[in-house]
Amino acid sequence: MTVSVEKPLLAALSKGLPAGAVLTGDDELDLHSRDSAPFCAAGRPAAVVRPETVGQVQHVVRTARAFGVPLVPQGARTGLAGAANAVDGCVLLSMVRMDRVLEIDTANRLVRCEPGVITADLAAAVAEQGLCYPPDPASWEVCTIGGNIATGAGGLCCVKYGVTADYVLGLTVVLADGEVLRVGRSTVKGVAGYDLTRLFVGSEGTLGVIVEATLALRPPPPPALALLARFPSTSDAGEAVAAIIREGHLPSALELLDRTTTEAVAALGHPLLARGEGDAAATLIVASDSPDAAAEVRAMAGLCHGANALSVTAAEDAGQSRQVLDARRMVLPALSARATSLPGEVTAFIEDVAVPRARLTALIDRIETIAGEYGLYISTVGHAGDGNLHPTVVFDRSDPGAVRRAEEAYDAIMAAGLELGGTITGEHGVGTLKRDWLARELPARSLRLHQDIKRLLDPEGLLNPGKVLA
Amino acid sequence: MTVSVEKPLLAALSKGLPAGAVLTGDDELDLHSRDSAPFCAAGRPAAVVRPETVGQVQHVVRTARAFGVPLVPQGARTGLAGAANAVDGCVLLSMVRMDRVLEIDTANRLVRCEPGVITADLAAAVAEQGLCYPPDPASWEVCTIGGNIATGAGGLCCVKYGVTADYVLGLTVVLADGEVLRVGRSTVKGVAGYDLTRLFVGSEGTLGVIVEATLALRPPPPPALALLARFPSTSDAGEAVAAIIREGHLPSALELLDRTTTEAVAALGHPLLARGEGDAAATLIVASDSPDAAAEVRAMAGLCHGANALSVTAAEDAGQSRQVLDARRMVLPALSARATSLPGEVTAFIEDVAVPRARLTALIDRIETIAGEYGLYISTVGHAGDGNLHPTVVFDRSDPGAVRRAEEAYDAIMAAGLELGGTITGEHGVGTLKRDWLARELPARSLRLHQDIKRLLDPEGLLNPGKVLA
Repeated sequence: MTVSVEKPLLAALSKGLPAGAVLTGDDELDLHSRDSAPFCAAGRPAAVVRPETVGQVQHVVRTARAFGVPLVPQGARTGLAGAANAVDGCVLLSMVRMDRVLEIDTANRLVRCEPGVITADLAAAVAEQGLCYPPDPASWEVCTIGGNIATGAGGLCCVKYGVTADYVLGLTVVLADGEVLRVGRSTVKGVAGYDLTRLFVGSEGTLGVIVEATLALRPPPPPALALLARFPSTSDAGEAVAAIIREGHLPSALELLDRTTTEAVAALGHPLLARGEGDAAATLIVASDSPDAAAEVRAMAGLCHGANALSVTAAEDAGQSRQVLDARRMVLPALSARATSLPGEVTAFIEDVAVPRARLTALIDRIETIAGEYGLYISTVGHAGDGNLHPTVVFDRSDPGAVRRAEEAYDAIMAAGLELGGTITGEHGVGTLKRDWLARELPARSLRLHQDIKRLLDPEGLLNPGKVLA
Repeated sequence: MTVSVEKPLLAALSKGLPAGAVLTGDDELDLHSRDSAPFCAAGRPAAVVRPETVGQVQHVVRTARAFGVPLVPQGARTGLAGAANAVDGCVLLSMVRMDRVLEIDTANRLVRCEPGVITADLAAAVAEQGLCYPPDPASWEVCTIGGNIATGAGGLCCVKYGVTADYVLGLTVVLADGEVLRVGRSTVKGVAGYDLTRLFVGSEGTLGVIVEATLALRPPPPPALALLARFPSTSDAGEAVAAIIREGHLPSALELLDRTTTEAVAALGHPLLARGEGDAAATLIVASDSPDAAAEVRAMAGLCHGANALSVTAAEDAGQSRQVLDARRMVLPALSARATSLPGEVTAFIEDVAVPRARLTALIDRIETIAGEYGLYISTVGHAGDGNLHPTVVFDRSDPGAVRRAEEAYDAIMAAGLELGGTITGEHGVGTLKRDWLARELPARSLRLHQDIKRLLDPEGLLNPGKVLA
C-alpha cells in the first residue's frame, strides 16, 4: 500500500474510534502481525485497530471496505494455523478491548459476552455463579472466546463435554457490508430457519466479525479422579482406550502420550513416569468426573491392567489426581525444556490431525516412522477419546534443512491422517497453514460450495482474504 | 400441470427407476400429499417416486429439473409443519425405500445409514451392538432418520442428551443440480472448512436431498429411575424445575403437564394422578439415569417437596418408574380419547414453541389465558428442562369457527413465545405452517441471508419450494 492511500485510511479509521484505538508503530504492527503458527507468511499491516463497541467495529469494516483494504480479525493470536496473520496493507482488527461479560443468566444456564473475553476469565466468572463453561483449549488462560469460536477450538474435556461449537447458541456478527447480523437464539432448543450460527463458528473471520456470543453453560461436574498407566507398546495403550470405550465409560479426559513424550516428561522428573518398571512406549492419562468417579477409575484401571499395562496408578484423592494430571500438563514445559537445551533457534510446533478413534494408534505408529524417516524429534500427544492427535516437531528454525524436513514431515502426517479416514484438523483450524490441505481433504463440489458461500458473504473478498480458502 | 407435460415426465422418471418406484394412482397421491400438520395446504403431485439408490435419487432430481418440476422430499410424513406436503405438479420424493443401516462402527461409536431407516429400527440395531442413539422424537417408532435430520427433530431425552443435530457428523446430499455433495466427517472432532453439515440439518429439504448420514452414538445410559410430583400451581412446578436446574441436576427427562393435561391423564385412569390429594394444577415427571439415579431421584423429590408439591412419588425400581413414565406416555392417548368422545371431526394438534427455560411457566400461564379467551380446550405439555412447550388444541375441524379460533390461538401463542424471548419452533420446524412466523422471528438481515443461501443452493427454486421461506 502506498503512503497516499494509507494516510487517508488511517485518518478515516481514527475518526470513528476512541483515542489510542489505532496503532501504527512498527513494534505494534510487528507484534500483531502473527499468530502462534510457524511456516505461515505474514504481510505488513497498515494499522492495528482496537474498537470497543459494535458500532466502532461497523465503522472499521465500512472504512476498510470504502478503501478496498483487507480486514483481519484477531483475538489473542494464540492460533496455530496463521488465520490471524496480517496480509499486506490490511487493517488488523483486534477484538481484545471488547472483553465484557454482558450477562450471566443462571436460571437459563447461559452467558452473553463480547469476543475479547479471555476464556479463563469467562470460566471463572460463570464458576462464581455456580456454573461451568467446559471448553478448555490449551491456551485457555490467554486466548479469547471470540478466537475460540472463530477457530472452533477444542480442548482436553471435549471427549466428554464437546467442543466450543457445541456451546454457541447465538452470535452477533458484523458482516462485510458493515451490517449487523444476529443468528441463533437464547433458548436451549430451536429450529427456526437454517443453522447460520454454526456457519460462522470455525469460519476463521472469513465470513464476518463476531462481536457478541450467547453460550450455553452446564452445572459444574463433580471433582475428577485420574489414573496414569504405562504401556510397553502403543498398541497396548490403544487396546486400553478401545476397552474403555467398549465398556461404555465416559472419561472426562483420555490422553495418550507416545514414547517420545513419555520420555520427555520423565526427563523433566515426573515421579510417576521417572520410576521405571519396564520401558514405557506409551502413557495413558484418564480422568473421570462421574458421580461415582472412584468406582469408574478402578474399573478403567482394571481395563489398563487387562491391556498389558506395565504400571497403573489410580488416584484416590484430589492430590493424587493432580499429580497424575501434572504429567499431561508437563508435556509442553518438557518440550520447551528440550528446545531451550538445544543449540540454534529451536522451536516446538504443535500440529493437529484427527482420525476415527480406532485408527489413533495406527497414526501414532506412522508418525514414529515419519520421525525416523526425516530424522526429526516428534513428540505426539493424543486426545485418544476423540482420535485427535497433536504431533509436535522440535526443530531449529534457523536451519533451513530442518525447517524443510519439518514441513515435509507435517505433510506426510497430514497425508497419513487422510489415508486413515481422518481430517487435517481436529481443533486448530485451517488458516493459511492448511489451506492447500483443505483443498485435498474436501471433495471438489464441497470446495466449490465453500467458495460460493465465501463470495455470498464477502463479495469483495476483504474479510481475512487467503485464509481457509485460496 | 397439463397432461402433455405430465406424461413425458412420468416416462422420463420411470426410465431410471425400478419397476413400481413411480406411483400415480389417486389413492397413492392422496396418501403421500400431506404430513401430519393440519392448517397446511397441500397441492396435487404429479407422482410419488421411491428410489432405492443414490444414483436413482440423482436421476429423479435431474429429471425434475429438466422438466422444471418442483421436488418435495419426504420420509414417514410424521412432520407437524407441512414441510412434506405436496405442491401442485410436484414430484414427491419418498425416501422410505432407502432404509438400510450401512455400517455400525462400535470402535468409533458411529453408524452410517440411509435416510429412510425408521428411527426406532436404527436405535434397536445399534442397541444390539451395545450402543445407544438417544434422539427420541415422539413419533420415533414410525418416523425416519432422514426426516429427523431434515427437521432437526428433538424428543424427551434432549434435556440431557441433545437433539438430532448434535448426533449428525456427516451427510451425503444430492444437490439441486443432481451432483452428490459429501459434508462433515467420520471423526469425533473436525474443523476443516465451514460447517456445511449443520446447514443441511433442519433445512427441511429446501437445500438438498439427504441420501446418507453418519451419526455419532453413545454408550447406553444406566437404567433410569423416575419421579412424579403434583403441584397446586404452575409456578410451584416451575419453582421445582428451577431448583432442580439450580442444584446442578441433569435429569434425563423433565416433563411438565399443565392442569388440563393432568386432568386428561387422570380421567384416563392413571393411578398416580387419579388419586386426589388436593387439586393439582401441574404435574412434573422427572427421570434420572445417572449412575446414582436413586440418590438423584431422592434429592429431586426433596426439591419438589420444597416447592410445595401436593404429592411426590419417587420410583424405587424399574416397575415403579414405568408407571411414572406412563403418565407422560398417556398424554396423547388421553387427548385422543377426549377427541373421539366429542361430536364432529375432532382433532388434536400439537404445537411447538420454546422460550428461555425460566420463562416456561409464564408461557404456560399465558396459554391458559389464551385458551380461555378463545374458548378452546388447550392441553400443554412441556420439555421443562429445555423451555420447549407443546400446547395441543383439541378442536372440531369440521367447524369453521373452531378452526379459525384454533388458528388465532396458535398465533397468540407464537406471539407470546416471541415476546418472552423465545422461538416459534423448538423442534418441529417451519414448513409452511410457520413460514410467516419465521419472517417475524428473524431479523430482516438474517432472512435475506436465508434467501441468499437458498438461491445459492437451489437457483431454480425447485427443491421443496415455499417451505421454510416464502
